[in-house]
Amino acid sequence: MSEAITHFKELCAPIWNLYSVRSLLYWDQQVLMPTGGVSARANQIAALEKVCHSLLTDTHFKSLLQQAEEQAKEDIDKRYLRSARRAYDLAAKLPSRLVEERARATSLAVEAWVEAKKNNTFKTFLPHLRTVFELTREVAEHKGYSENPYDALIDEYEPGTTTAQIDQLFRGILPPLVQLVQGIAGARPISRKLLQQPFPFEGQHQFSRYLLEQIGFDFKRGRLDQSAHPFCSSSSSVDVRMTDRLDEHLVTMSIFGSLHEGGHGLYEQGSPPEWNSSPLSGGCSLGIHESQSRMWENFVGRSLPFWKAHFPAMRSIFPKQLWGYTAEDMFRAVNYVEPSFIRVEADEVTYTLHIVMRYELERDMIMKKLDPADLPDAWNQKMQDTLGIRPPNDQMGCLQDIHWSDGLIGYFPTYSIGNVVAAQLWRKIGKDLPNLESDITAGNHKPLLDWLRHNLHRYASSVLPGEAIFEATGGEELDHRPFVDYLWDKFSKLYEIQRP
Amino acid sequence: MSEAITHFKELCAPIWNLYSVRSLLYWDQQVLMPTGGVSARANQIAALEKVCHSLLTDTHFKSLLQQAEEQAKEDIDKRYLRSARRAYDLAAKLPSRLVEERARATSLAVEAWVEAKKNNTFKTFLPHLRTVFELTREVAEHKGYSENPYDALIDEYEPGTTTAQIDQLFRGILPPLVQLVQGIAGARPISRKLLQQPFPFEGQHQFSRYLLEQIGFDFKRGRLDQSAHPFCSSSSSVDVRMTDRLDEHLVTMSIFGSLHEGGHGLYEQGSPPEWNSSPLSGGCSLGIHESQSRMWENFVGRSLPFWKAHFPAMRSIFPKQLWGYTAEDMFRAVNYVEPSFIRVEADEVTYTLHIVMRYELERDMIMKKLDPADLPDAWNQKMQDTLGIRPPNDQMGCLQDIHWSDGLIGYFPTYSIGNVVAAQLWRKIGKDLPNLESDITAGNHKPLLDWLRHNLHRYASSVLPGEAIFEATGGEELDHRPFVDYLWDKFSKLYEIQRP
Repeated sequence: MSEAITHFKELCAPIWNLYSVRSLLYWDQQVLMPTGGVSARANQIAALEKVCHSLLTDTHFKSLLQQAEEQAKEDIDKRYLRSARRAYDLAAKLPSRLVEERARATSLAVEAWVEAKKNNTFKTFLPHLRTVFELTREVAEHKGYSENPYDALIDEYEPGTTTAQIDQLFRGILPPLVQLVQGIAGARPISRKLLQQPFPFEGQHQFSRYLLEQIGFDFKRGRLDQSAHPFCSSSSSVDVRMTDRLDEHLVTMSIFGSLHEGGHGLYEQGSPPEWNSSPLSGGCSLGIHESQSRMWENFVGRSLPFWKAHFPAMRSIFPKQLWGYTAEDMFRAVNYVEPSFIRVEADEVTYTLHIVMRYELERDMIMKKLDPADLPDAWNQKMQDTLGIRPPNDQMGCLQDIHWSDGLIGYFPTYSIGNVVAAQLWRKIGKDLPNLESDITAGNHKPLLDWLRHNLHRYASSVLPGEAIFEATGGEELDHRPFVDYLWDKFSKLYEIQRP
Repeated sequence: MSEAITHFKELCAPIWNLYSVRSLLYWDQQVLMPTGGVSARANQIAALEKVCHSLLTDTHFKSLLQQAEEQAKEDIDKRYLRSARRAYDLAAKLPSRLVEERARATSLAVEAWVEAKKNNTFKTFLPHLRTVFELTREVAEHKGYSENPYDALIDEYEPGTTTAQIDQLFRGILPPLVQLVQGIAGARPISRKLLQQPFPFEGQHQFSRYLLEQIGFDFKRGRLDQSAHPFCSSSSSVDVRMTDRLDEHLVTMSIFGSLHEGGHGLYEQGSPPEWNSSPLSGGCSLGIHESQSRMWENFVGRSLPFWKAHFPAMRSIFPKQLWGYTAEDMFRAVNYVEPSFIRVEADEVTYTLHIVMRYELERDMIMKKLDPADLPDAWNQKMQDTLGIRPPNDQMGCLQDIHWSDGLIGYFPTYSIGNVVAAQLWRKIGKDLPNLESDITAGNHKPLLDWLRHNLHRYASSVLPGEAIFEATGGEELDHRPFVDYLWDKFSKLYEIQRP
């Protein structure tokens, strides 16, 4: 290793360590911080970010990065430098004036959004929405792009992915998915009666922990707690913390929430420990991360083999509620499909349609094809066109998500990229592991986890998402077809309908 | 405010914010971090310290500090700068070679101490002990002192306090305390039967929380959790976290542990919020901090009025255990005195004797009057001379505490300074609040807390410990007499003995 690279890595270590501390501060705030600590925590996070930013944008950092890039010969060093360069660019390209202005604007916008959602007053939120989109467009200009300002935004969450790719993806997904939703609407509904009863908290927590242990989450290197909004936060591969949310009347929330966050958690625990606190550690993009959470939540967790394996355990925890029910009943109940207004409560089929409309709306607002004032109408029309329902108000419509107020623009598509990539991986896994179904039926999730560890997790952030897909699938690019086929295949059987 | 001072404060804010983050990382590690996260956490803490150290010792920091000192006119600015100057000196006076060497040596020494304590092999620990004391002596030389190298060490924990002062303090305490212990040994023993039964965990936790609420701890700005070693950690006055430890067969551990940490916690919560994350925030020394914890634990918590107020609540939580017992029984039981080998289990009377011997031993090792190889014999002899008992082995003797292996030399006396200062304050409070006893009997702790807030807490770190004592007592210096009088007064009544 050249001297410049060694020095550069020494320069990076504290910065990435401080980033990992930031994750922990965030986790702490969501999970257990006393309510009075909010403003002190904001100061701590601001101090950390300021220090990281000044270390990253220091001229010494830049010149050593350049020297290291010139001297790098080994592939892994080049990957290290590529990832560090991305972080440098993200930090250096934005003038601090803009960063501060956006931080202030989104902080005010989130506050205004909370109020507007509570009172169903889109108009009071509109000026904030406008400001956030204007500032975000400015961010895109500073970051730079070749075709579409939205490219610069999605690139932050999904490096190397373009608006054109997402457009193409959704063009392929939308028609067959709308057809599937319509087909299901005309079919005989599935019974979910077994889920419509109270399940005590303690049992829910016990079952979540059981499931996470079963799928291979290592509790010596992680935790499960509760928070208002479930999430997974990793400060390193040896300290991965997930949360779920418990509702006595909605046992699926903790089951699938835990499996979802567990998927994120397994990916983070699979990042090589020697890369901890370096530009190579952790998941390579939000979309690839979401492929892991969605795979364990839906492809595994909403499958019949999975419930054949784990329904007995659930029944032993909830003997009264589950008396007389079978694994098949559970499998059918958790696959109930019905168009609904709220994204986070949507089923596996309709979920993607929620994402597509959000993507189109934010893309058009960034491209100035849609004025924020016209958002509620555009929202309601798109929902009518795809899901066949119309929100009764903006609370249940365009005011439901925090993302836009918080400046998370370019973020929504990563949810669908996750589903699409999960389906691509699932197809490949099916070929590589002919016994997958019987293994899962036997409660043996190790072959699947080993496959993911070997073909995806161990690359962590040394790859771009496109490379991760290529590597794991044996040469594929982002492709919507496996996902569409998977959904049609699964749900046409469940609902006894024919694909046209 | 001058421009230099404004700039200097802007420079300090991120540093003190990062220090507060370090407190949180420590708390997290002790309370809930997954076991696998240890080495990653060490890297995070090292990165934080490195950044803080380099920000503190930056030439820009030094020159701006000097400018600010020249321009400061307002008293509070001068205090701010004095506290910042202390931090600068502590950081700048030690060569980084020595800091690293000591960190490595103490880390190895702690490991060796754990083993040596487990196996009762002082000899395997001796070379580490020797190294730690040698390096600490070197630290003292770099810090500088006028009379005794030990002065430089105690100054870190108790700014402005000298070896001569501690010597004088303990010369005054030792004879009357040894007399008291001997007097009690010849008296009729107190019954502690009521404590010698199991108290379920849940009730203990409930009662601890009740007591902390009763004495005025604000749970909106703090937490109570469990950890192996109870402590209080504050990242700001709005986020103060305490822990206690539960043992089913030792209910006093959680009661007095919580009151003790609660005393620390109240002091931290009383630090003015506008000073958070600045050199003015938090407690001004370990000794003054300990005066607060000891006051609530012993002066309040081990008093008859306190148990008259709270024994009914305890009995309603533990009706079976406490049936037939009275507040007086509880008061007597928690004041059982008996010489014993282990400091952390010692009672209010013998505790100070444990401290005096540790102080004399570490002072003599720093002054090269005592060779570390002779420590076990010297330890056992001192214990014989003061407490009249001789440890059966080094496990229960000189190997019992972690402090020396961890380089905490100059730290032990602060425990006793705490008791002494608490007694001085208690005497003054008794004069200022004539209804104190009846207030406490009525469960009203507000007048006491208000007094402490007004006369001590609100000064936080804007004062040196000597100034804090002077301010709160109305002009006194550190004085052992109130403490000796308090102990003799309380225990001569309890044990029906006469002060010679």
